[in-house]
Amino acid sequence: MTGLEILTVGRVGVDLYPEQSGVPLAQVRTFAKSLGGTATNVAVAAARLGRRTAVLTKVGPDGFGDYVRQALTGFGVSPDHVGTAADLLTPVVFCALDPPEDPPLLFYRLPTAPDLTLTAEDVPWEVVEQVPLLWVTGTGVCVEPARSTQRAMLERRGRRAHTVLDLDYRPMFWSDVDSARREIGWMLDHVTVAVGNRTEVEVAVGTADPDEAAARLLDRGLSLALVKKGAEGVLVATQEGSWTVPPCPVEVVCGLGAGDAFGGALAHGLLAGWEPVRIAEYANAAGALVASRLACADAMPTPAEINELLERV
Amino acid sequence: MTGLEILTVGRVGVDLYPEQSGVPLAQVRTFAKSLGGTATNVAVAAARLGRRTAVLTKVGPDGFGDYVRQALTGFGVSPDHVGTAADLLTPVVFCALDPPEDPPLLFYRLPTAPDLTLTAEDVPWEVVEQVPLLWVTGTGVCVEPARSTQRAMLERRGRRAHTVLDLDYRPMFWSDVDSARREIGWMLDHVTVAVGNRTEVEVAVGTADPDEAAARLLDRGLSLALVKKGAEGVLVATQEGSWTVPPCPVEVVCGLGAGDAFGGALAHGLLAGWEPVRIAEYANAAGALVASRLACADAMPTPAEINELLERV
Repeated sequence: MTGLEILTVGRVGVDLYPEQSGVPLAQVRTFAKSLGGTATNVAVAAARLGRRTAVLTKVGPDGFGDYVRQALTGFGVSPDHVGTAADLLTPVVFCALDPPEDPPLLFYRLPTAPDLTLTAEDVPWEVVEQVPLLWVTGTGVCVEPARSTQRAMLERRGRRAHTVLDLDYRPMFWSDVDSARREIGWMLDHVTVAVGNRTEVEVAVGTADPDEAAARLLDRGLSLALVKKGAEGVLVATQEGSWTVPPCPVEVVCGLGAGDAFGGALAHGLLAGWEPVRIAEYANAAGALVASRLACADAMPTPAEINELLERV
Repeated sequence: MTGLEILTVGRVGVDLYPEQSGVPLAQVRTFAKSLGGTATNVAVAAARLGRRTAVLTKVGPDGFGDYVRQALTGFGVSPDHVGTAADLLTPVVFCALDPPEDPPLLFYRLPTAPDLTLTAEDVPWEVVEQVPLLWVTGTGVCVEPARSTQRAMLERRGRRAHTVLDLDYRPMFWSDVDSARREIGWMLDHVTVAVGNRTEVEVAVGTADPDEAAARLLDRGLSLALVKKGAEGVLVATQEGSWTVPPCPVEVVCGLGAGDAFGGALAHGLLAGWEPVRIAEYANAAGALVASRLACADAMPTPAEINELLERV
């Protein structure tokens, strides 16, 4: 893709959203299918904001793999770097809106997910080196061979701005928290921006205190750290200072994808050269809009929708 | 369960049926969830006909495992012999109604299905020995430990009538066809009734010719063999002779589950002591009714529905 602006690396899959809210998985009657996976959703969210994006990931040789490529194309995200893992299945994830704010997920990605089998052969090395914004996730280094592949990518990238790490810690993907701290910690020395919630920064830098965590992240040489504090807003920290941006109040329909909408807007704002506080406000609004909707990828907001919400609050 | 009449052994899972017909999986928008798995569907079908049934199987420790137990109970099937495999997921199966007569399936049962981890500890041995009808499937012996467990069950049963083998051959569950022929062949010497289509009898006894296959099955000491010939009907063969029962003409909505409805009716008819031709006619009608409906387990017909169809044709 000529003029690619953002390459995200990581999960892809099919999300199955319940069409009945407030009941456990056992009582859901029907599910709506949607494109999913955090790295994928971030690429979709940034594309919705006008960015030329691609996702580096893999699917299985099945009908859902076909769907992933078709859906990406439909969202204006390049499917050129979606590979195929011959013996695996495209991951599916079921969720129950019980509670809607923090839906429990049931992942089908055994024995492993195709995206975790990324090898050097799958990587577009020139893109990794030159793309204006590279987006990686903590989950991407949870197992081999994806771990070594992403380490090699970050080394090749040479901490060029913008290299963003979504801390994205999900305990079920790790054998233990110490491994996660070690591996995600390694990544911190190779990126320029990090974003995560209290749990995620605790895994990454050993404290759940937002100010202390942000300070530790900046000490590692990052230019920007964002710590999500839930109802208390987002802490934005740079070498110049730190600010807390309040959340956008919305009626939550499904909390999933809000973080990815935030991520897509963050990537967009970084490329636009906005001030960090403006980026966080914009990203907060994008996240709030997705939280007020059922789907993730299908629900990523347009600039007009974000601006309208920002004017209202 | 006091007075259990039928114990089926084998697959259970969650079927996800597309709510849009005639499109490939990639284009399905919404799926309806249903109880599935052939041994499970047979137990449900027989329960709908008034029989006291249970299924011997296993699920994962997840929301879909809860659903399986709740759904079985709702259908009047005992969940007492549904175990839990700690490190596995309850299998899910997606289908696309493309074509509706023979929907392609996408199985999520990696690295293996819980039901294939059945061990001696999971087996209610007294029930296996004494239940009036034991129903096993060819897939049940595709891998260890389920293979040895079911061999031990059949040995314990001592070829007591009725012991029914649903040949149920699915190539993706086997390393090669020779293994399938050897393992399913072993089962033939330990059952009293076998049922399958042309492909399945070819795997079991080496010929796809219905008459020859039926003769070979009876030579193995079975009292009844049923060979499904699709549009040509069902061949019913006993030591006394053979008959072909024509199919019931219906508009096919989804071919899945028709064979299981047939199976449930077969089990019911055997216990009722009906003549083989009457059993096949009744089972054909039950299968046709399910083929005219979207779901499997949810669509199993009542005696009144079967009788009404039999009077119409």
